[in-house]
Amino acid sequence: MKIRLGCQLGYRINGSTTLVLNIQPAETPRQRVLHEVLRITATDGDGSGGGEGQAVPYESWTAAVTGNRYLRVRAAAGTALLVHHEAEVLLEPQVADPAGINEVPYAELPPEVLPHLWPSRFCESDKLQRLAWREFGAIAPGHGRVTAICNWVNDRIAYLRGASNPTTTATETLLAGAGVCRDFAHLSVAFCRALGIPARFVSAHAPGLVPPDFHAVFAAFLGGRWWLFDATRQAPLDALVRIGEGRDAAEAAFAEINGDAVPTGMEVHAEVTEGLDVAHGARTVGAVADVAEAP
Amino acid sequence: MKIRLGCQLGYRINGSTTLVLNIQPAETPRQRVLHEVLRITATDGDGSGGGEGQAVPYESWTAAVTGNRYLRVRAAAGTALLVHHEAEVLLEPQVADPAGINEVPYAELPPEVLPHLWPSRFCESDKLQRLAWREFGAIAPGHGRVTAICNWVNDRIAYLRGASNPTTTATETLLAGAGVCRDFAHLSVAFCRALGIPARFVSAHAPGLVPPDFHAVFAAFLGGRWWLFDATRQAPLDALVRIGEGRDAAEAAFAEINGDAVPTGMEVHAEVTEGLDVAHGARTVGAVADVAEAP
Amino acid sequence: MKIRLGCQLGYRINGSTTLVLNIQPAETPRQRVLHEVLRITATDGDGSGGGEGQAVPYESWTAAVTGNRYLRVRAAAGTALLVHHEAEVLLEPQVADPAGINEVPYAELPPEVLPHLWPSRFCESDKLQRLAWREFGAIAPGHGRVTAICNWVNDRIAYLRGASNPTTTATETLLAGAGVCRDFAHLSVAFCRALGIPARFVSAHAPGLVPPDFHAVFAAFLGGRWWLFDATRQAPLDALVRIGEGRDAAEAAFAEINGDAVPTGMEVHAEVTEGLDVAHGARTVGAVADVAEAP
Amino acid sequence: MKIRLGCQLGYRINGSTTLVLNIQPAETPRQRVLHEVLRITATDGDGSGGGEGQAVPYESWTAAVTGNRYLRVRAAAGTALLVHHEAEVLLEPQVADPAGINEVPYAELPPEVLPHLWPSRFCESDKLQRLAWREFGAIAPGHGRVTAICNWVNDRIAYLRGASNPTTTATETLLAGAGVCRDFAHLSVAFCRALGIPARFVSAHAPGLVPPDFHAVFAAFLGGRWWLFDATRQAPLDALVRIGEGRDAAEAAFAEINGDAVPTGMEVHAEVTEGLDVAHGARTVGAVADVAEAP
Repeated sequence: MKIRLGCQLGYRINGSTTLVLNIQPAETPRQRVLHEVLRITATDGDGSGGGEGQAVPYESWTAAVTGNRYLRVRAAAGTALLVHHEAEVLLEPQVADPAGINEVPYAELPPEVLPHLWPSRFCESDKLQRLAWREFGAIAPGHGRVTAICNWVNDRIAYLRGASNPTTTATETLLAGAGVCRDFAHLSVAFCRALGIPARFVSAHAPGLVPPDFHAVFAAFLGGRWWLFDATRQAPLDALVRIGEGRDAAEAAFAEINGDAVPTGMEVHAEVTEGLDVAHGARTVGAVADVAEAP
Repeated sequence: MKIRLGCQLGYRINGSTTLVLNIQPAETPRQRVLHEVLRITATDGDGSGGGEGQAVPYESWTAAVTGNRYLRVRAAAGTALLVHHEAEVLLEPQVADPAGINEVPYAELPPEVLPHLWPSRFCESDKLQRLAWREFGAIAPGHGRVTAICNWVNDRIAYLRGASNPTTTATETLLAGAGVCRDFAHLSVAFCRALGIPARFVSAHAPGLVPPDFHAVFAAFLGGRWWLFDATRQAPLDALVRIGEGRDAAEAAFAEINGDAVPTGMEVHAEVTEGLDVAHGARTVGAVADVAEAP
Repeated sequence: MKIRLGCQLGYRINGSTTLVLNIQPAETPRQRVLHEVLRITATDGDGSGGGEGQAVPYESWTAAVTGNRYLRVRAAAGTALLVHHEAEVLLEPQVADPAGINEVPYAELPPEVLPHLWPSRFCESDKLQRLAWREFGAIAPGHGRVTAICNWVNDRIAYLRGASNPTTTATETLLAGAGVCRDFAHLSVAFCRALGIPARFVSAHAPGLVPPDFHAVFAAFLGGRWWLFDATRQAPLDALVRIGEGRDAAEAAFAEINGDAVPTGMEVHAEVTEGLDVAHGARTVGAVADVAEAP
Repeated sequence: MKIRLGCQLGYRINGSTTLVLNIQPAETPRQRVLHEVLRITATDGDGSGGGEGQAVPYESWTAAVTGNRYLRVRAAAGTALLVHHEAEVLLEPQVADPAGINEVPYAELPPEVLPHLWPSRFCESDKLQRLAWREFGAIAPGHGRVTAICNWVNDRIAYLRGASNPTTTATETLLAGAGVCRDFAHLSVAFCRALGIPARFVSAHAPGLVPPDFHAVFAAFLGGRWWLFDATRQAPLDALVRIGEGRDAAEAAFAEINGDAVPTGMEVHAEVTEGLDVAHGARTVGAVADVAEAP
C-alpha cells in the first residue's frame, strides 16, 4: 500500500525559540519512505506578508531505541516559522489472525520490553491494578483481551475535543469520562500494563481520519511482537503510518517548543494512493503489527 | 426496638490536648435515649497502673443544624484519658415501600436541602458528572436508583481494611477499587449528588456489624425526606442508631484530636435487646428513613 | 458609607432550567440595604429582538446559618433570561487595630465556629498541615499571622485569568502558582484552617475592583469575631459589600445552573456614593470585621 | 577508593513468583567491580528451618541505554528465597570545581539527553513550571543552581520514614512536606526538568548512610556530563556506588515482584575499605560526576 502524507505547521516566534519536531514517518523494513520533502522557512514579521521565506537550517537524528526521527530547529524572535513536510510511504503491514496471538508470561518477556510495564507520566498503571484485574482479569489472555480493553474504553469514554489538556493522565480520563485520541491511548496502555501486558504509545498519520489530523494509538506486546490497537476506532489500523513511539505522549510529542512561540496553524493530510480503499472509520482486518517489527 | 450500645475510648495524652467527640446517639422523636452514662476520667501516666482515675470536666452541646451531640474535653499532658459511654435507645424507624419514593426535582427541593447537592471535601461530585449519568442516567429515578448506586459500589469496591486513609476521597476510592465503610459512603454520596439527588454522610452504631465498630452509611433525600442506605450491606438499616451526620466524614468525625494524643484502644458495641432479631449482615426490610425525620 | 451596586446577568435557555442565584447583598446591622430593585424577565428567542420581556416569577429565601440571600428561578426552553439587580447599601464596617486581635485557642472556640476548621472541597487544609506550620508556625499568632498568609499567597500566586477552572482546589493553586480571586481565597483559607484558625470564603461586591466584577475574599475568626482578608489586595476591605459566605466557593456560588443554559453576558458594578474616596487597589485601614458581625 | 558492599534479601514465596532485581553495581571505567559473589537460594517452607538451600537459576543482563544490571529469578510457591550479594568496587569518581560547570542550552543538548527533560511518572515537571521559575529563575545557571534546588528541598521537606508510599509523586511530596530519599530525589529532578536542566534518578550503595540502606540520589546534566546531587545530604557523593539509573524510581527499582511474594528481611551494607575516611553525613568535596561518565 502506498500512502501520501504531510503536514504544514506555522509558528509565530515571539522570542528566540528552539523546536524539536517528530513529524516524519519512521523508516522500517515494513514502512519505507519512498520520497520525502522537508522545507523549513522563516519570514520576518508574522508571515502574513507572504513571500518565500528564508530556509532555516536544522539538525536531524533518529533515536536509537525508538527509531523516532527528530528535527531540531532554532527560530529567531520576530519571525514566522513554517514547517512543510510531504512524503510518500510504502506500507506493508503484517496482518495476522488475532486468535493465535497470546500474552507472554512476565518471566519470558525480553528484557528490552520490560520498561513498557512500568508506569509513566500519563499512564499510572500502578494506580489501576485492582480495577484492571476486576474488569479484565476473567477475560482469556491474548490479543482478544487487549481488544476487550479497547471496547471498554470506547464504551465509557466520550470522544470530546477540549475535554482534556496536555497534563491529563489516564486516571483523570477514566474519571472525566471524556477525552481525545491521546487520552484513549493512555487509558488503554495503563490497563494493559496493570495486567502485565507491555504497552506503548504510538503517534501516527491516519488515512481515513475525519477531520484529518495527527493520530494517537497504542501497541501491546503479545506473542513476541508489538501489535497495534486504537480504542477510538477512528481509522483503519493497517493504513496507519507510524511516526513516533514512547511510553506515553510525554515521550512521543509531535512538537516540543522551548522558548516563546505560538502555533498559528496546522494542516495534516494522509491518503492511500494505491492498494487499499480506506473508508472512514475503523475496519476489522485482523491483528496488525507495529511496522517497527522486523518482517 | 431497644438497643443497648456504648464505647470505650482510651488516649495517651503526650501534650496538652483538646478532644471534640461525637459518639452519643442523636435524640429525635424516633430515636429516644432511655438512659445514658458518660464517664470521662484521667489517670496519671499511661493508665496501666489501673485505679479509678479522676473525673475530667467537659462541655457538651447539640449542633443546631445537624442535631449532632458533641463533647469537648481538655486533657493534661502525661495523663491517660478514658472515655466510657453506655446508652439504651428506643428506636422506632419509619419503614416504607421503596417503590413509592421518588426523586424531588431541583426546582422543588427545600432550600435547606440544597447544600447537600454541593461537592464536599471527600465527595467530589463535580468531577463525576459524566460517569454518574452514564452509569445511572438510564435507571428509573427514585429510591431504586440510589439502591442501584449502592449495588454498583458494592460490586466494584472491595471492602479492605487499610486500603484508604483519612484523606481518601470518593474519586480515589473509585480508582483504588477498595475501601472501608467511610469510603463506600463517600462514593455513593458523590454519585447521588452528581445525579441531582441530595445526599449526606451518617455515622452510626450498627447492631449486627462484625466485628463491632462504629459504622458509616449515608442518607439520600427522596420523596420529601431522608432515607438511609448502606453500600457495604454489613448491617440492617432499621437497627442503625444515628450518631452524627454531615456532608462527609470531615463533618461527622467520631473524634477530633487537637494536640498531642495517641489512641490506645477502642471498644464499641451495640445489641438489640428487644423487638428484633438482628442477624449478621443486611436484611431487606424496605426503605428506612433517617431517624432525624419527624414522625 | 453608601454604596450603589448591581449586576445584569443574561442566559440563553436551551432546555428547561432552574437557576439558584446569590447576588443580593446580605442584610445585617452593619450593612443595610436602603433600596433594591430586582427584575427578572424572559423574552422568546435569544433576547436579541429587544423588547421588555415578561416578568418571571421567583422564590427567595435567606439561609439561616449564613444569612445568604437566594433566588430560585425557573426558565423555559427557548427563552432568553435577564436578571437585573440594583441596590444601595449603607455600610458601617467595624475597623480596629490589628495588633489587638488574637487567635482563639481551640478549646475556647464557640461550637458554631468549629465547622470552619474542617477541610472542604476546595480548601484541603488536611493536606497542608506540615507546610502551613513550617511557613507560618513561627509567626506570632493573631491578625498579623493571617496577614502573613495573605502576603505569602500574594507573593507566590500570580493573578492570571484562565489559570484555574471551577474544580481547582487550594493545593492545585499552590502547585500551579497562578489563579484568580477565588483561588487566592481558597489557598489562604486552607492555610488558616491548617493552623487552627477558623476561616471561611466570602463573596462580595468590591468598589474599586478593576475591571468591575464580583469578588471573592475570606474571613478568619480571631478575637471572638470574623475579620476580612483579601490576598489579592485588589480592593479596599472596608468598602466590600458582602453577598454570600460559605466554607468555600462550592457553598457561595453566585449562580448555580441546573438544566441547559448558557451565560450570554454579565455586567457588575459597585461605587461608593458617599463617605469614602475609594482609589484603585487595596488601602490599609486596619482590621475590618465581616459585616455579619453584630455591631 | 575501594568499597565493600552487599545486601541480603529474603522473600517468602506464597505463589509462583518472578523477581527482577537491580542490586549489583554498574560497571564503568570509573567504577570497576573487583570481585563479586551472588548466591540465590531457596529452601522449602519459610526458611526458618535453616540449611543451605538449593541454588536457584537466574538470568542476568545489562540494559543497553542505562547500564543497569538486572537479574531475573523465578521462585516456586511454598519456598523461601534468599538473595545474597557481596562485591568489592574500585571507585575513581571525577571531582571538579562546581564554579566552572554550566547549564547547556536546550538547542545544544545532545539528542540522547533530551528524554531526561520529559516529565515522568513520579516527576511531574510539567506541573511545576511556574513554581520552579519563581523559586529558581533568578539564580545564576549552573551547578550552583542545582545545589540551590537541593537546599530548597532540604529546607522544606522533612526526612520522615512512612511519610510516602510507592505511588507518591514529586508534587505530592511538595505538598506533604515530608518524604524519604526517593522523594527528595523526585522533587529535585522535577524542578531541574522544569528549568530545562536534564535530570535523572540514581539508586546507589552509600557508605556512611545511617542506618545502612539502599540510597536514592539524582544526577543533572551540566557542562556536557552528568553530575550527582543528594538533596538529603545523608552520605558523601564521592563514595556513592551507582547501582541503577532511570527517569525516576519507576525505572530504577531494586526489586520488582511479579507474583505472590512477601519480603521477609533486608540487610544492606557498604564500607569504604581503602582511600577515604567517610564520616556520617555529606561532605562537600566539589562537584562529583556520575560514574557512568567516561573518564
